[in-house]
Amino acid sequence: MLLRFKFFFNQNPVGAWSRAFCQPAKFIDAEVSKLLELKAQLGDPAPKKFILKTAKGTKDYGPQQMALRLNILDKVISIFKLHGAETIDTPVFELKDVLTGKYGEDSKLIYDLADQGGEKLSLRYDLTVPFARYLAMNKIVNIKRYQIAKVYRRDNPALTRGRYREFVQCDFDISGIYDPMVPDAECLKIITEILDSINIGKYVIKVNHRQILDGLFETCGVPNDKFKTVCSSVDKLDKMSWEEVRKEIIEEKGVDSSVADKIGQYTLFSGGSELVEKLMKDENLCKSKSSVSGLEGMKLFLKYCHLYGIGDKVVFDLSLARGLDYYTGVIFEAVLLDQSVLDENGEPAGVGSVAGGGRYDKLVTMFDPSKKTDTPCVGVSIGIERIFAVMEAKLAENKETVRTTEVEVFVASAHNGLLEEKIKVCKELWDGKIKAEQFYRQKIKLLDQLQYCEERKIPLAVILGGSEIERGVVKIRNVVTREETEVSTTT
Amino acid sequence: MLLRFKFFFNQNPVGAWSRAFCQPAKFIDAEVSKLLELKAQLGDPAPKKFILKTAKGTKDYGPQQMALRLNILDKVISIFKLHGAETIDTPVFELKDVLTGKYGEDSKLIYDLADQGGEKLSLRYDLTVPFARYLAMNKIVNIKRYQIAKVYRRDNPALTRGRYREFVQCDFDISGIYDPMVPDAECLKIITEILDSINIGKYVIKVNHRQILDGLFETCGVPNDKFKTVCSSVDKLDKMSWEEVRKEIIEEKGVDSSVADKIGQYTLFSGGSELVEKLMKDENLCKSKSSVSGLEGMKLFLKYCHLYGIGDKVVFDLSLARGLDYYTGVIFEAVLLDQSVLDENGEPAGVGSVAGGGRYDKLVTMFDPSKKTDTPCVGVSIGIERIFAVMEAKLAENKETVRTTEVEVFVASAHNGLLEEKIKVCKELWDGKIKAEQFYRQKIKLLDQLQYCEERKIPLAVILGGSEIERGVVKIRNVVTREETEVSTTT
Repeated sequence: MLLRFKFFFNQNPVGAWSRAFCQPAKFIDAEVSKLLELKAQLGDPAPKKFILKTAKGTKDYGPQQMALRLNILDKVISIFKLHGAETIDTPVFELKDVLTGKYGEDSKLIYDLADQGGEKLSLRYDLTVPFARYLAMNKIVNIKRYQIAKVYRRDNPALTRGRYREFVQCDFDISGIYDPMVPDAECLKIITEILDSINIGKYVIKVNHRQILDGLFETCGVPNDKFKTVCSSVDKLDKMSWEEVRKEIIEEKGVDSSVADKIGQYTLFSGGSELVEKLMKDENLCKSKSSVSGLEGMKLFLKYCHLYGIGDKVVFDLSLARGLDYYTGVIFEAVLLDQSVLDENGEPAGVGSVAGGGRYDKLVTMFDPSKKTDTPCVGVSIGIERIFAVMEAKLAENKETVRTTEVEVFVASAHNGLLEEKIKVCKELWDGKIKAEQFYRQKIKLLDQLQYCEERKIPLAVILGGSEIERGVVKIRNVVTREETEVSTTT
Repeated sequence: MLLRFKFFFNQNPVGAWSRAFCQPAKFIDAEVSKLLELKAQLGDPAPKKFILKTAKGTKDYGPQQMALRLNILDKVISIFKLHGAETIDTPVFELKDVLTGKYGEDSKLIYDLADQGGEKLSLRYDLTVPFARYLAMNKIVNIKRYQIAKVYRRDNPALTRGRYREFVQCDFDISGIYDPMVPDAECLKIITEILDSINIGKYVIKVNHRQILDGLFETCGVPNDKFKTVCSSVDKLDKMSWEEVRKEIIEEKGVDSSVADKIGQYTLFSGGSELVEKLMKDENLCKSKSSVSGLEGMKLFLKYCHLYGIGDKVVFDLSLARGLDYYTGVIFEAVLLDQSVLDENGEPAGVGSVAGGGRYDKLVTMFDPSKKTDTPCVGVSIGIERIFAVMEAKLAENKETVRTTEVEVFVASAHNGLLEEKIKVCKELWDGKIKAEQFYRQKIKLLDQLQYCEERKIPLAVILGGSEIERGVVKIRNVVTREETEVSTTT
């Protein structure tokens, strides 16, 4: 009774409530039956208001955006092909079990499918885990593959500006048992080729090695079981100050302040081969086998980067940690330096990282525990959505547009009534593999057609007219120069 | 008690059961507590067996399949571009409300996302409804767009062989207020260009008109409210005999047998313009305004098809109905005639329809009921998965393979220890935009490297050797002819 009363109170304005207060139950029952009666008279309930929108955190890409995206992706794919990559395709959803235990805390961001009486399914969160599943399932050891596809994360898009819940990932990975650091350095070469080919501006590629980080944590006194959690704190150094990260390591991760301070000293280091040499002489660090092995790897890695001619773009940076658990060797991240490009909100569009990756030698084995040897992998994920954003902002700044079609010839009519003639000319052009279009109308002004050509940057117009048709000719007009030439249609 | 006993019977072999039969409840309880004790000793339960597979009804596409698919899609896209099409992209999931009420009975095949505290979402079922939603949302009237993307249907893939739950759709649509039948005929022109360009074999495009069908149902005496349901029965004529369809119309749809027989007479008709002329003189049919309007449309449509030079591939077929509710005008379907190509199971791979579509003038308005004028659309969906299947079968029959990479030069070493030299040569080739790769190893036999080139159809190999390097030259080998030439590396 009290509960019912409370419910009523919450639903009703004060006036109704004061009446209800006098004889609550009776009043409610009477009102309810009145409403039910009215509802019955209405017949079917009125259709609920339909909201015309895309799902939260997703968006459509119109012709203009798609043209820019496909231009950039063409360049990226051509570089993947330059390096001999094949492509594969995997389903947009996986068995939930495939994704479980791969993303740590971020697993809560995975989209699940509804239980409609079958397997438990989830939308893919990245392309790396499905790739590893594919390798294990098909017992593939050697492959160099690229994959460009959408992935899904139930992130809060309002909080992370520019990040959507559906976005494109663009991955290149080399899997196979090879000499150390050669495929790893090639991944960096690919990053430089891609970033240079799209003219995105100045950048630097930070590199580090998980074994060096592990050794560093070991020698600083981080307990073994806290390596990964401290690593994810260090990973935040690109967004937070050391003071904040230090606080997190001490207060949230429960690590001694003296230990945190030691780590802090190391994270200040960045440089090239000379830093590797210096650290190789660091007695503390070299107590750890892991550090020594990591530093030797880094030395070789930097040597190959120099052979590839990209040494000047690579910085060995001890503060680089990378969030994902599955990395086992070299890790890297390309960061834009030129942030003068502004986005639609007037903020720098070049928001940091535009590519990242590393070596993950144990992930495939997670899918095939019976396997005795690992399937070593190294790969790079191009931050293509950020690149799109930067390039869109550049275009907007220069007030440029991209052509959304490749039409070469517009088939126009000088006066009404030439629809059949236009159809015939289009047929001839298409049969000759010349990209052409027309307005599908008898009645259309020549000016409107020429204006359309200018807007769409169509270079040529074929202009049909009654007298020309009688003489067996058409006019061909250069849309930019407005020059016109007559051409015979019979020869 | 009986239930418990039955359960036990199902779980246990006969020996245990016979013991249990003597003193069932006591025995079971004792056994259960023993097992629970053992389980407790084991600590954590053993991890459940992980099954390495893709979700039911989905599959991975490896490099070989992807290369074939991309080759075919390239050709399809180039034809869409020939006709001046732009492309757009929409999210893989939509608000459930967007899909509701668009697919009739097939709505049960829609994949829903789990309720994770947000909007009710579903995976897209086709590309047409999201396209219509996009047009309504952005108030776009004129667009010629293609879209190639995956769609999702919870079909039973075991029942419908070769149909997957995730598959690619490939759509081209023209939206805008234009003169009748011109864009419609262009859709057919596009179908012929695509099917001819991929050399798929002989085909015919069946065409019909929803207004003719409506008029036909009207004059045969089908009640107005049964037009759509009778139409979906007629749609089955490509898979079922008229006798079966007739039975369905009479028994399931509750239509008089005399009415069904009249319909049956008409569905036998197929032909060209002469059939249109004949039907225009059919007094019964021409009592219906809808028939007259549809026949006039068909006459114009066939005329334009002739102007496009595809008249010989088009057949006006009164038995063509198309399943979807939203069509309002011309409908069409391309059917392969040459079924001599066999698939992996030795059955004809060319299983009927390879493209289909029609005019849908009211769909966009469903998303924007306030709109006073319609956004007329006509479009074609290329049955790209069937085309892939046919082409895969053709390749397999001819024992052909497709190259999965475009590598032009393999960088090989004549003996061990030339890894750094190979890196340098690869760098030079990549910087010169020449597609190249190497094995990432110091130790590798020349024969293995040359064999790889032959398998992968790489045309050229650069062969590095110590003495050649000293002389400042490399050998370039033509992999097919095995001819070798020396080239200087210093100039």
